[in-house]
Amino acid sequence: MTTRQTLRLDGQRLWDNLMRLAAITDPDRPYTRRSFSPRFCEGRAWLAEQFAAAGLAVRIDAAGNLIGRREGVGADAPAVLIGSHSDTVPAGGRFDGIAGLLTALEIAQSIDEAGIRLRHPLEVVDFLAEEPSEFGLSCVGSRGMAGMLSAPMLAYRDPVGEQLGHAIDRIGGNTASLATAIRGDIAAYFELHIEQGIVLETGRIDLGLVTAISGITRTEVVFTGSADHAGSTPMDLRKDALVAAAQTVLFVAEQARALAARREGHFVATTGIIEAQPNAANIVPREVRLVVDARSDNRRLVEAFAAALDAETARIAARQPVERSRYAILSDTQPALCDHVLRELLGASAADLGFSTMEMASGAGHDAAFVSHIAPAAMLFIPCRAGKSHAPEEWAEPAALTAGAQVIGEAVLRLDQASA
Amino acid sequence: MTTRQTLRLDGQRLWDNLMRLAAITDPDRPYTRRSFSPRFCEGRAWLAEQFAAAGLAVRIDAAGNLIGRREGVGADAPAVLIGSHSDTVPAGGRFDGIAGLLTALEIAQSIDEAGIRLRHPLEVVDFLAEEPSEFGLSCVGSRGMAGMLSAPMLAYRDPVGEQLGHAIDRIGGNTASLATAIRGDIAAYFELHIEQGIVLETGRIDLGLVTAISGITRTEVVFTGSADHAGSTPMDLRKDALVAAAQTVLFVAEQARALAARREGHFVATTGIIEAQPNAANIVPREVRLVVDARSDNRRLVEAFAAALDAETARIAARQPVERSRYAILSDTQPALCDHVLRELLGASAADLGFSTMEMASGAGHDAAFVSHIAPAAMLFIPCRAGKSHAPEEWAEPAALTAGAQVIGEAVLRLDQASA
Repeated sequence: MTTRQTLRLDGQRLWDNLMRLAAITDPDRPYTRRSFSPRFCEGRAWLAEQFAAAGLAVRIDAAGNLIGRREGVGADAPAVLIGSHSDTVPAGGRFDGIAGLLTALEIAQSIDEAGIRLRHPLEVVDFLAEEPSEFGLSCVGSRGMAGMLSAPMLAYRDPVGEQLGHAIDRIGGNTASLATAIRGDIAAYFELHIEQGIVLETGRIDLGLVTAISGITRTEVVFTGSADHAGSTPMDLRKDALVAAAQTVLFVAEQARALAARREGHFVATTGIIEAQPNAANIVPREVRLVVDARSDNRRLVEAFAAALDAETARIAARQPVERSRYAILSDTQPALCDHVLRELLGASAADLGFSTMEMASGAGHDAAFVSHIAPAAMLFIPCRAGKSHAPEEWAEPAALTAGAQVIGEAVLRLDQASA
Repeated sequence: MTTRQTLRLDGQRLWDNLMRLAAITDPDRPYTRRSFSPRFCEGRAWLAEQFAAAGLAVRIDAAGNLIGRREGVGADAPAVLIGSHSDTVPAGGRFDGIAGLLTALEIAQSIDEAGIRLRHPLEVVDFLAEEPSEFGLSCVGSRGMAGMLSAPMLAYRDPVGEQLGHAIDRIGGNTASLATAIRGDIAAYFELHIEQGIVLETGRIDLGLVTAISGITRTEVVFTGSADHAGSTPMDLRKDALVAAAQTVLFVAEQARALAARREGHFVATTGIIEAQPNAANIVPREVRLVVDARSDNRRLVEAFAAALDAETARIAARQPVERSRYAILSDTQPALCDHVLRELLGASAADLGFSTMEMASGAGHDAAFVSHIAPAAMLFIPCRAGKSHAPEEWAEPAALTAGAQVIGEAVLRLDQASA
């Protein structure tokens, strides 16, 4: 590696770009660029300009991913991809997604400015709709690139009735030729992301080396009882759906604590959605809907939880008594392992640049989970303040962002030269 | 009582009137006549026509109550009132309120047709807004008649910003002279109502003689935690407002069962409203709002419950930990005793007409509770199918309605002649 050139990133430019794209937000609810919305398209138009200005050839693939590419000098070498996503949750933050995306742009631009010619083609990728969109699906673009965006998914409709496939085509994709988005030519995928947790901050660690991305299993449970008068129905004659739901909420939390305490992997479970009908002060709740989200990098823990939840909600319904009128697995993704060779490359690069690291599982889902099905994929976490994410107060320090970008840039150069 | 005339009611006419008024409903959500709405005013216009056709002098008092009156032959005799209410909950039933109101009309009409001249003035009263309206207050008209409709209540606003006082004036009241609605000239108040419970049906009893109307205490509890990422926040670092809320829901149900089991009176408690924020599958619930409704005819039970709820929700918040960011008594009415002389009169009338009766407390609130503060008040319950109320399937048999009307009519005649 004696001939290796060093890469000088412009941390200020990276930060300024981040703030510029973050400022493209629905003004009444910062920071919001919902996938498929006019605001999202405005952000992408700005991104496409930046990609072009960095000398990248810009295209949108059939799955709706925005890609900027510079060809490599090696004949037929597979591509190195760096990326993340530019869409946000409603009233989200300024870092989730675009921190990784603009890091990718900064690396591509710096490599070009340094006159470094990579052997591999280099691509900067803005994956479409990583956040759960109005269509109820997350990671739309990375699913498409991995060949995991199915025809039934394309038929999902948003609340105003548009089909997902139509929306992908509307923003420049081509679902009639969706298979052309599937890639078999990727040497490596790198993604920087804020941790969205407090492990790095608490441990005062500079960077997290992601070992695996948790699988997510979402279960919908609906209890149906009887909407009786809250004044005239004696306690022992009630069929109260909310009491059954409350028992389920407590079971989910207790079971999650017990599984996490086994220390066989990351495990969390959350009842995030509760909706009661008729939801009136003077009526016994007739129907309550819950959505339970369970995540682990250890599939066996998720399966143990799912079996326990099924059995316990059936028991709760029988005991109350109410009817468990719906019990449905809304989504179920397997844990995704990150590539250990790339992780070691990131770790070595970080060490040589003087940054501390720790290995950790990701509890959040990421595009890297889908890319990992078709290519070696690696993720690098940077700390974020108080673990806050998906909220306007989401924050990462400029120095942390630059550190992460430097480490990924260094890893890309080492990868390119090592395989020369 | 040898000179007493007998009263022949027209049960078919009573039933037809009931169905006619019930049919005045928002067409897309039967049966709905929300107080202050155009549909409500349409119902009242029809009622005013019927009152006039029965020879009653029609007026709206300062509190917005629609009153039809026939003068008595006794000089300065206080009035006998019979009534209930014509407003409904959203998507309510065909009996709650108007069963009592049209019974009152049928009695007035039958007395007139029979040529009976009462010593007392007779009034048929449609109390304004008995159900909790969009202004968050129930029994608006009967509060007004009892002098219990306060200036702060008149300032309550509905979701579109109208003030309650303005709404009362809009439908024909006169809140600038609200004191003129207060009555000191009432000899007796009778109200027929469906039971809204299953006690009469289960026991195959014809009619219920109401001993007391439960006081209702409504408490709002808000827990505020932290909206953390459901994937990346370990279980032991969470501040989950929904877990605290679920513990509260279970406590309310358990405590209510324990207090009811003391057999010191009717006691029920219900968590009827639950609202979570941000209510998203992938975010730990930040804030949950509960409304707890507790009712008893024994004030000591309500006080014991209120003290326990206050202490327990504080403990739950401290243990979770989350903040108990709001704990507010939304409303707190005392139990109201029905008049025992009128109850005995109803019981004797029922017995002589061949109907079985039982004494029972009302778990539901009623206008009679407010009227009882200014006059002897009595309520008569008729059975309703499966206890269903506040729902389209609410049902009472025509024979039960006629039986109740006959008993109140008989009681009115006996009262009038006894005090002659």
